[in-house]
Amino acid sequence: MDFTPSDKARDYTERVRAFIAERIAPVEEDYLRELLALPEHERWRVLPVIDELKAAARAAGLWNLFLPDEREGAGLTVSEYAPVAELMGRSFIAAEVFNCNAPDTGNMEVLHHYGSPEQKERWLRPLLDGEIRSAFCMTEPDVASSDPTNVEATAVLDGDEVVVNGRKWFSTGAGHPRCEVLLFMGLTDKDAHRHQQHSIVAVPRRADGVTVERMLPVMGRYDEPSGHGVVRFEDVRLPASALVGAPGQGFEIGQNRLGPGRVHHCMRLIGLAEAALEAACRRGAERVAFRKPLVNLGGNRERIADARIAIDQARLLVLYTAWLLDTQGILGALSQVSQIKVAVPLMAQRVVDMAMQMHGGAGLSDDYPLAAAWTVARALRLADGPDEVHRGVVARLELGKYGVAR
Amino acid sequence: MDFTPSDKARDYTERVRAFIAERIAPVEEDYLRELLALPEHERWRVLPVIDELKAAARAAGLWNLFLPDEREGAGLTVSEYAPVAELMGRSFIAAEVFNCNAPDTGNMEVLHHYGSPEQKERWLRPLLDGEIRSAFCMTEPDVASSDPTNVEATAVLDGDEVVVNGRKWFSTGAGHPRCEVLLFMGLTDKDAHRHQQHSIVAVPRRADGVTVERMLPVMGRYDEPSGHGVVRFEDVRLPASALVGAPGQGFEIGQNRLGPGRVHHCMRLIGLAEAALEAACRRGAERVAFRKPLVNLGGNRERIADARIAIDQARLLVLYTAWLLDTQGILGALSQVSQIKVAVPLMAQRVVDMAMQMHGGAGLSDDYPLAAAWTVARALRLADGPDEVHRGVVARLELGKYGVAR
Amino acid sequence: MDFTPSDKARDYTERVRAFIAERIAPVEEDYLRELLALPEHERWRVLPVIDELKAAARAAGLWNLFLPDEREGAGLTVSEYAPVAELMGRSFIAAEVFNCNAPDTGNMEVLHHYGSPEQKERWLRPLLDGEIRSAFCMTEPDVASSDPTNVEATAVLDGDEVVVNGRKWFSTGAGHPRCEVLLFMGLTDKDAHRHQQHSIVAVPRRADGVTVERMLPVMGRYDEPSGHGVVRFEDVRLPASALVGAPGQGFEIGQNRLGPGRVHHCMRLIGLAEAALEAACRRGAERVAFRKPLVNLGGNRERIADARIAIDQARLLVLYTAWLLDTQGILGALSQVSQIKVAVPLMAQRVVDMAMQMHGGAGLSDDYPLAAAWTVARALRLADGPDEVHRGVVARLELGKYGVAR
Amino acid sequence: MDFTPSDKARDYTERVRAFIAERIAPVEEDYLRELLALPEHERWRVLPVIDELKAAARAAGLWNLFLPDEREGAGLTVSEYAPVAELMGRSFIAAEVFNCNAPDTGNMEVLHHYGSPEQKERWLRPLLDGEIRSAFCMTEPDVASSDPTNVEATAVLDGDEVVVNGRKWFSTGAGHPRCEVLLFMGLTDKDAHRHQQHSIVAVPRRADGVTVERMLPVMGRYDEPSGHGVVRFEDVRLPASALVGAPGQGFEIGQNRLGPGRVHHCMRLIGLAEAALEAACRRGAERVAFRKPLVNLGGNRERIADARIAIDQARLLVLYTAWLLDTQGILGALSQVSQIKVAVPLMAQRVVDMAMQMHGGAGLSDDYPLAAAWTVARALRLADGPDEVHRGVVARLELGKYGVAR
Repeated sequence: MDFTPSDKARDYTERVRAFIAERIAPVEEDYLRELLALPEHERWRVLPVIDELKAAARAAGLWNLFLPDEREGAGLTVSEYAPVAELMGRSFIAAEVFNCNAPDTGNMEVLHHYGSPEQKERWLRPLLDGEIRSAFCMTEPDVASSDPTNVEATAVLDGDEVVVNGRKWFSTGAGHPRCEVLLFMGLTDKDAHRHQQHSIVAVPRRADGVTVERMLPVMGRYDEPSGHGVVRFEDVRLPASALVGAPGQGFEIGQNRLGPGRVHHCMRLIGLAEAALEAACRRGAERVAFRKPLVNLGGNRERIADARIAIDQARLLVLYTAWLLDTQGILGALSQVSQIKVAVPLMAQRVVDMAMQMHGGAGLSDDYPLAAAWTVARALRLADGPDEVHRGVVARLELGKYGVAR
Repeated sequence: MDFTPSDKARDYTERVRAFIAERIAPVEEDYLRELLALPEHERWRVLPVIDELKAAARAAGLWNLFLPDEREGAGLTVSEYAPVAELMGRSFIAAEVFNCNAPDTGNMEVLHHYGSPEQKERWLRPLLDGEIRSAFCMTEPDVASSDPTNVEATAVLDGDEVVVNGRKWFSTGAGHPRCEVLLFMGLTDKDAHRHQQHSIVAVPRRADGVTVERMLPVMGRYDEPSGHGVVRFEDVRLPASALVGAPGQGFEIGQNRLGPGRVHHCMRLIGLAEAALEAACRRGAERVAFRKPLVNLGGNRERIADARIAIDQARLLVLYTAWLLDTQGILGALSQVSQIKVAVPLMAQRVVDMAMQMHGGAGLSDDYPLAAAWTVARALRLADGPDEVHRGVVARLELGKYGVAR
Repeated sequence: MDFTPSDKARDYTERVRAFIAERIAPVEEDYLRELLALPEHERWRVLPVIDELKAAARAAGLWNLFLPDEREGAGLTVSEYAPVAELMGRSFIAAEVFNCNAPDTGNMEVLHHYGSPEQKERWLRPLLDGEIRSAFCMTEPDVASSDPTNVEATAVLDGDEVVVNGRKWFSTGAGHPRCEVLLFMGLTDKDAHRHQQHSIVAVPRRADGVTVERMLPVMGRYDEPSGHGVVRFEDVRLPASALVGAPGQGFEIGQNRLGPGRVHHCMRLIGLAEAALEAACRRGAERVAFRKPLVNLGGNRERIADARIAIDQARLLVLYTAWLLDTQGILGALSQVSQIKVAVPLMAQRVVDMAMQMHGGAGLSDDYPLAAAWTVARALRLADGPDEVHRGVVARLELGKYGVAR
Repeated sequence: MDFTPSDKARDYTERVRAFIAERIAPVEEDYLRELLALPEHERWRVLPVIDELKAAARAAGLWNLFLPDEREGAGLTVSEYAPVAELMGRSFIAAEVFNCNAPDTGNMEVLHHYGSPEQKERWLRPLLDGEIRSAFCMTEPDVASSDPTNVEATAVLDGDEVVVNGRKWFSTGAGHPRCEVLLFMGLTDKDAHRHQQHSIVAVPRRADGVTVERMLPVMGRYDEPSGHGVVRFEDVRLPASALVGAPGQGFEIGQNRLGPGRVHHCMRLIGLAEAALEAACRRGAERVAFRKPLVNLGGNRERIADARIAIDQARLLVLYTAWLLDTQGILGALSQVSQIKVAVPLMAQRVVDMAMQMHGGAGLSDDYPLAAAWTVARALRLADGPDEVHRGVVARLELGKYGVAR
């Protein structure tokens, strides 16, 4: 047992840390202020500073770090990438700057593993180059999508074409001005085994029949310029080559997409929680009430300790999950991948809530990043499956050890 | 011991319930949609429907119900008004419609009890008539205002004038187009006893030297058209008759303002939590995943039960506090007034969080009122003193029973 | 709404408070020490001080206070008795001294309401006189008895006799040297409606075929001299007149037995929690570490505040439940009777745990009553239905408001 | 980063697992029953089966595994020993069988590192051989011993003698019939720096002036035959060579004793929690209520999942702490050693509480090991420093990162 990171992991971690400190941190606050100062409808654009940072990151070799493939990414394993993702989680824009932002990362992985040469050329290449963005269209407003077999949208084969119909929401990234491709999950064969009914289709954002009806706020925020869209697909007719993988392979692809993705999400939340704890410590040490610094009042020190303990436990669980994924694949980490999905967002939500409280009213304002951070953490208790569903997976696997069927 | 409401309370409760059901509920959703559809900077206005509803409420005798005074209000005691306030808490606009909205209610009470005849004529009358709005300017960005003796803004007497300086924030209501008066708390005499240093001044919103620098978002929301302002006071020179009460009486007035106000806030939160629980039950019963309604999955029923138990306990504590205020005054309810401030917002935050979770992604969107409701509850864990300060009060009074000094 | 206790309630509360302070408190600690100093097998006896106290209580008119019937008890309503029960809960022996101890109280109520004249003469009379004790034999080791329809023991009618068979455990009171009657729940008619299958039989403790196999410890304690027995019934043949109520009426009787009983239990736990909070305050104020009294370290004051808030909310919920039982009967209080069963033992467990922690190692020892108090609270999270079952009842009633079937 | 255990760790883990399965598990329940069947005062003895098992363990090379020293122990590092300790924690007697039981382990470490050759010969040798037992006398009934500088007992040098006075309690092991040496912490020089005032003395159990006044129950249990003693030292006069280490070195020794000791304690609690979770799964799968296995009722599956997640996070934190101790020593693990002391006992207490609840009344009885397990976990929230003190340490180190002084 050895908790030492590999030389490679350490190298990338240090370089990413330095890049964030030197290039991103000095401009991030201004960027966010500039964006929010725009009228709402004008925020759906990429401000120049983002493109400059992206170019600099790529030039520095800090690009597509999430991708284990050495030719396209940095060749980092999941557990080597994890501490890098944590650092990115301390910033709202770093993931994009390093071309490591969701949902593009997961979409690139899907296209990398399942895409046809044509799809790789058309969609993966520009995604890897950071020239376009993508969305993943899975959840539907009309059904409880925590059960993926509820999906009602359709991807029907018709000769050498596939016809896509349905209404999706919380399609993250769909509002981005450079979003060019939507990975769409739809029902192809209702009579197949329940895990072989769905297919994934790469739908061009500008295809006929695709409408982004509106963007959805999450706790009042639109997360411009990416956002979360309500997308309508009406008789979108595409060549069958738009299918990613085989017909009926959608469920499998969706599952495989999620393993490393959950590690990425969770590590970013670890970073976000660390930043919130640091803010709580600094604020609590500076502010004085009743003639004492806040940290010396009531239970505040105990709260700081509990946050430290919770973050460290959560990080270790994610790192362990990453290591299992690296060494045993998704089948060796099924329980853990759900465990971190339960444990980490909830931990992050609580730590940020504590930090908000330590900041007083300021913690709820946008003068500090805590309100936005809370929203990120809270949303991840639902995105990609609610806590309760993942607890169900963990329990099923646990009970399975004692021979309990579903 | 008798939990039966008085005939008067029951009568008003029923009439308010009916008015909300018949007049407010049918239009509230459209109103909110209409408001949010406006560009941000155009939302600081009173849409016509609000004035129509206010006129109707006043005509129906449902006006200023919060005020125990029979001539101006309905003559309801605090505990008689409590269930009425609960009903208002189920709506985002009802309190305003019945002219029972914070911070005007507290400000009207202050002016009613401490205002000079001139102040009553100039400010209280139009507030009671719902023609103008007001703000309370207490909290400051530069100090931990949970300790009121930290207040650094000044209200200095200079001959027969008072000169007001300072910077306040989270001045709720300051953005309202009809806001005409700001009750300002400032330091008058640094050498007096720590509870006799501050004074309250009724500052006209349009006085020279008053600037609303900007409005503050709370969890990304501006709560238009009332909002929370950052207000700068620069050498605002007013006749000494603008002082509310005597010089140095500010702390006392502030404390008295809070007793019934906390009951009002808390009862509205009870209503908000009830509405969230109802939404959770309805959503959980309708939505199906894994072939069962959500309420029959995992721990959802237990969560519903826990919410019911938490709400009912919280309501009883608030009603008991109201009864203590009615029968023994603020000095007989010091602990309870802080107890409800701790217990109720936290309860409401949790119940709404549970309801959000039961709604899936929809719960975070603005298609349902839950995201906004969560923000209300969360903000009240800080507004008017953070939880931790109130726990300190409760503990001090508890330990005092055993002779423990501060 | 009026939280003032009736004159009668206040009178009894004051007299019970005085009796406990003057007669019980001065001797209780010695009594417990004397009992525990005996070898384990000799603790199943009534020490003389108990009989002396009982005689004094009866002489003082403080006897059978739990019974609303004026001829036998004090004629106190459930809500009038509640504060009296709270006081008893601060002591381990007071309930017995006032002849208000479980399970005798519930058993007396059953015999009072459903007993035949003969049963009243034979069992109820001496129970009311405090001469004998009783047990309630419901739970079985071999089945999950949280579901009462699981009961496997049998009470079979055979001509004019009833034949009782089965094995019961956690039969509280079965170890008492004066235990003379066991109210036994058994299956009479498997084919009847599931709530009409069981009957209750009054089985003489010394009847042929009745064996107390052993006494069960609860968290290592035997609660001598009452205890919790494993009782075997082998072909116990009794005249059919031993049935309490009609054949098949057992479930109904069991349910009715529980309403006021839960209020009693819960109010005693309120008293127990109050005593624990007082102990925590006193200990925390006296003990010094790191140069400060414990209450001024870390989160201890916040813990004290949280305990105060939790106790007061719980008490109000129980009082409200009592008032509902008084004014609307069990059918008007179904949810509340389950709500208090969930909320109060859990609250008491947590408050006592906090108090134990404030006492350091001493809190776990028997030098203080906290370890025993914790056990009482913990046991009541299972006795008379586990938390989870009661949450299920609350949720079912809540969802029923919206038309959700079971 | 590599979570693979070393070959050596794996080897010992497997051999210990097999030994427990083949030799200990088959007899443990009988042993406990036999012991508890004895009258209380006769339980302070070593039943033959224990000595047989010890001999077998030693013969199998599974002896003193906790000691990193290769000559005396197995040469396992702290992190290699950790999984072995976890296995021992699933049993109430395994630690003793492998001569790895507290407080002997800590005492052996102290004597190993600080003992004179004479002390090693007289006390360490027979402890390593499992022939005698020892106690650690630190905590005092009259002061809050969570602050070690409160210690009032004295170890005064008088010429070439040391005179020991004071009263200690919770001296674990003091009741064991083979307890021969007490490591006693006393005040030597009140005027020295606060961390150099105390000394440790190796006091023979049978020395003149040493009296075990009584044994203390913990949650009603005496933990025979080891137990927790109240020990009085009256003018115990010993040669100065009885000092362990130098005068004034007591605090340092005490601190060093605790690092690995906390890892051991915590890993045993992990094992205890695992056993409780397994019991909960098995019971929940077997028992049926309302026509379903308990695990399919209400929130039970979610509870199982939460337990799994909590255990795994806790284990990883302890393993990480062990690794830090191995690679950086106690100074590199100060925060973590306190973190696990907070996190693990609380986690274990909750998991066992959940398992108890799943067992119904049985969970509180001694028919299952859960009640005893709960007591172990609860006691460790106080033993060796209460949670609150350790949270204080964690917070101090956290705030220190930002330059906050104590």
